[in-house]
Amino acid sequence: MTQSRPSLETRTERLAQWTANLQYHDLPDEVIQRTKELFIDWLGCTIAGRHHPAVAAIVRFATQMGPSSGKSELIDGSLRLTSSPAFASLINGASSHVVEQDDLHNRSIMHPATVIFPSALAVAQDTHADGKEFITACVVGYEVGCRTGEYLGKRHYEVCTQFRVHVDEAKTTTVQKFHSTATGGVVGVAAAVARLLHLDANQTLSAIGTAGTQAAGLWQFLLDATHSKQVHTGKACFDGIFAAYSARDGLPGPRDILEGARGMGAALAPGETDPEAISQGLGLDYAVLGSSFKWHASCRHTHPSVDALLALMAKHQVKFHEIDSVVARTYQAAINVLGLTGRGETVHQSKFSMGFVLAVAAKNGQAMITDFTEEALEDAELREFQQRVTMELDPEIDAKFPKQWQGTVAVVCKDGRKYTESVEYLKGDPENSLTTYDSTGLSEQC
Amino acid sequence: MTQSRPSLETRTERLAQWTANLQYHDLPDEVIQRTKELFIDWLGCTIAGRHHPAVAAIVRFATQMGPSSGKSELIDGSLRLTSSPAFASLINGASSHVVEQDDLHNRSIMHPATVIFPSALAVAQDTHADGKEFITACVVGYEVGCRTGEYLGKRHYEVCTQFRVHVDEAKTTTVQKFHSTATGGVVGVAAAVARLLHLDANQTLSAIGTAGTQAAGLWQFLLDATHSKQVHTGKACFDGIFAAYSARDGLPGPRDILEGARGMGAALAPGETDPEAISQGLGLDYAVLGSSFKWHASCRHTHPSVDALLALMAKHQVKFHEIDSVVARTYQAAINVLGLTGRGETVHQSKFSMGFVLAVAAKNGQAMITDFTEEALEDAELREFQQRVTMELDPEIDAKFPKQWQGTVAVVCKDGRKYTESVEYLKGDPENSLTTYDSTGLSEQC
Repeated sequence: MTQSRPSLETRTERLAQWTANLQYHDLPDEVIQRTKELFIDWLGCTIAGRHHPAVAAIVRFATQMGPSSGKSELIDGSLRLTSSPAFASLINGASSHVVEQDDLHNRSIMHPATVIFPSALAVAQDTHADGKEFITACVVGYEVGCRTGEYLGKRHYEVCTQFRVHVDEAKTTTVQKFHSTATGGVVGVAAAVARLLHLDANQTLSAIGTAGTQAAGLWQFLLDATHSKQVHTGKACFDGIFAAYSARDGLPGPRDILEGARGMGAALAPGETDPEAISQGLGLDYAVLGSSFKWHASCRHTHPSVDALLALMAKHQVKFHEIDSVVARTYQAAINVLGLTGRGETVHQSKFSMGFVLAVAAKNGQAMITDFTEEALEDAELREFQQRVTMELDPEIDAKFPKQWQGTVAVVCKDGRKYTESVEYLKGDPENSLTTYDSTGLSEQC
Repeated sequence: MTQSRPSLETRTERLAQWTANLQYHDLPDEVIQRTKELFIDWLGCTIAGRHHPAVAAIVRFATQMGPSSGKSELIDGSLRLTSSPAFASLINGASSHVVEQDDLHNRSIMHPATVIFPSALAVAQDTHADGKEFITACVVGYEVGCRTGEYLGKRHYEVCTQFRVHVDEAKTTTVQKFHSTATGGVVGVAAAVARLLHLDANQTLSAIGTAGTQAAGLWQFLLDATHSKQVHTGKACFDGIFAAYSARDGLPGPRDILEGARGMGAALAPGETDPEAISQGLGLDYAVLGSSFKWHASCRHTHPSVDALLALMAKHQVKFHEIDSVVARTYQAAINVLGLTGRGETVHQSKFSMGFVLAVAAKNGQAMITDFTEEALEDAELREFQQRVTMELDPEIDAKFPKQWQGTVAVVCKDGRKYTESVEYLKGDPENSLTTYDSTGLSEQC
């Protein structure tokens, strides 16, 4: 495998060089195997999300604006079957981010599968790439996307800005701002597609640059349960494909979009970036190995508390109806995200309510796709339990986030019993991964 | 015309309501007339820019990803003639931002024509809208786009962030970050297209929301003369069209994307927004009347100094070869933008070099499209003069920017003469507009 060359000027150039030169035979077996597992996990998420209204609206857009057919397959709820890679990935990228069960790369706070797989699959189908090329491109996409997310850091996702409220008054406010899956994702998509198009390092650098200057995605939608989350992932696919194809066809992009003085770091995460994350350990660490499967079908920020609560209930034989109150001790980003949704008025929004998710988990012993339904939203027991859950910032847990997503819950029972339980690694984390159930033999195919 | 209703909750809702209800017969004659003039000005810019390599690459993308034909016309250098509205506007929006002669709305620091006209034209062709509907949509697009830009303010364009360099050290840095034409533009496009699609206020609010969550565009490209500027305008068209069509087809967007706690203001211009700009004077002031024609084919930030220099040379009969040095006293944003490009290695980049542009103006008595050529880049006289131009921050001028774009130049002649000249309103400003040359009668047609 090509190592990064010290003679190259910038870290982003090293990343582009690595992207252009990586070969399938460079990849360790566990990287290949994990990529296949992540792909199958993604496919399940995509199928599960294909009937969402956001997907239907995007399909309608593709029908009006795109070609009537193409080589790239759609996974949606309509009768349309194929389109061009840009539109197929726009649709599949939206579908796969509906049910909140797609993977999560801890350190970058990103869901890489939902942007990398749909775009790489659509382009691979269009270019007749074989399985090895496809896997190599996906590994590249994960790597570049997650490294971009890590570089932008948790302050990008959960920006801490000292800004001026009045001329002479400084105020520090911590709010959650950018949907890293989209902003880092579009860069990863560009790299994956660049690899499939066999772009050289210079063209790949342009693809990364043109992707980065399109990076967008705000969390405002979470406040009113609107559908931008699926727009963000679908558009990251579309925009990253645009970046790579246009780079191939002669459109130069900014050469230092990550670290440049007017680049992503400066504009989207000022003063809070981690430059080493861009290229340190490239080809030694693999982002696909750092991504977690989501066991629960809710926002990942609820998982530490769900795991801790389920462990506590099992350990101490506590039943749903016996619980009087739950305190979920967590990190700041979780409070920022989960504090936005209020009661949780829709199925999707309810997955972002710590109280509702813990209620579901406590009552059903799990928090799967089938546990989040319209009926569940009307369940008086769940709604009542939800009111008795609070979140508290735990400075120790916060300091470790996002390298570790730890959780602690403290439960008081109606009969006065009190318990506390913590989890170090979530179910689905690389350190605590899921077991494989394979009745198809798919994971043996390339 | 429908006035904003005090009962509406947010300023963005008021803007959406106004957008949905505005009628052609509400528009003052001067608004209609100016819109026609701006459209003709835009068309000239689009034709002039259609052969740029960025446009060719985008056409290639549209050929691979889009339909083979459609109802919307392309203005490009290829033999392709039509496409769907999204791709036609992607191409035309790129073409019209090549030669740097498209209009400029002072207070928002935006080029509205290059995003509003291509998208409104493409959708009007697709929906068979008549001229009155088209003009109404363009007025709406200018208004919503420019108000978004004004709301985000000059700190969005030229962000002043107090950020942490080290844990205990605060540092204030002023850098230019977001290409407002794209970030405000995408919101304006969504509104213009929403009007053409006859969306109601609620759907329009969704269109604005979905547009805003896609807002992107960084200035990094200016450092290495790459082509993101055209990507930004073309993509603002595409993305705004996506937002409006998907809103019509059932995709709800965030309802308070401008002022919401996780919206554009919070993420892209923290602590520096001007909320009043969103809805104050709606239906009384018109953005189309506040937009300036660009007389010179260079970055608008050079225009105050160009006008002042040409005035000085005329007034005091100073010739090009007599000038020893020029100090251009200007505002901070001009220094930020024009300080990025170094010597100006390409035709486009040379238009962003204060020294080069003043050299061209001083030597040729003008700075038109035909003055910026490959030959000019090799002109030793221009290059030598360029070295003798410096920029200085003028606090008084800076305080008035962007409401006024004033300029002062101080010239020292080789024979020791010294002159200073200032301009209050630029040639092309609404207060100092261009005369009309109309041999076609086009401006009389709707």
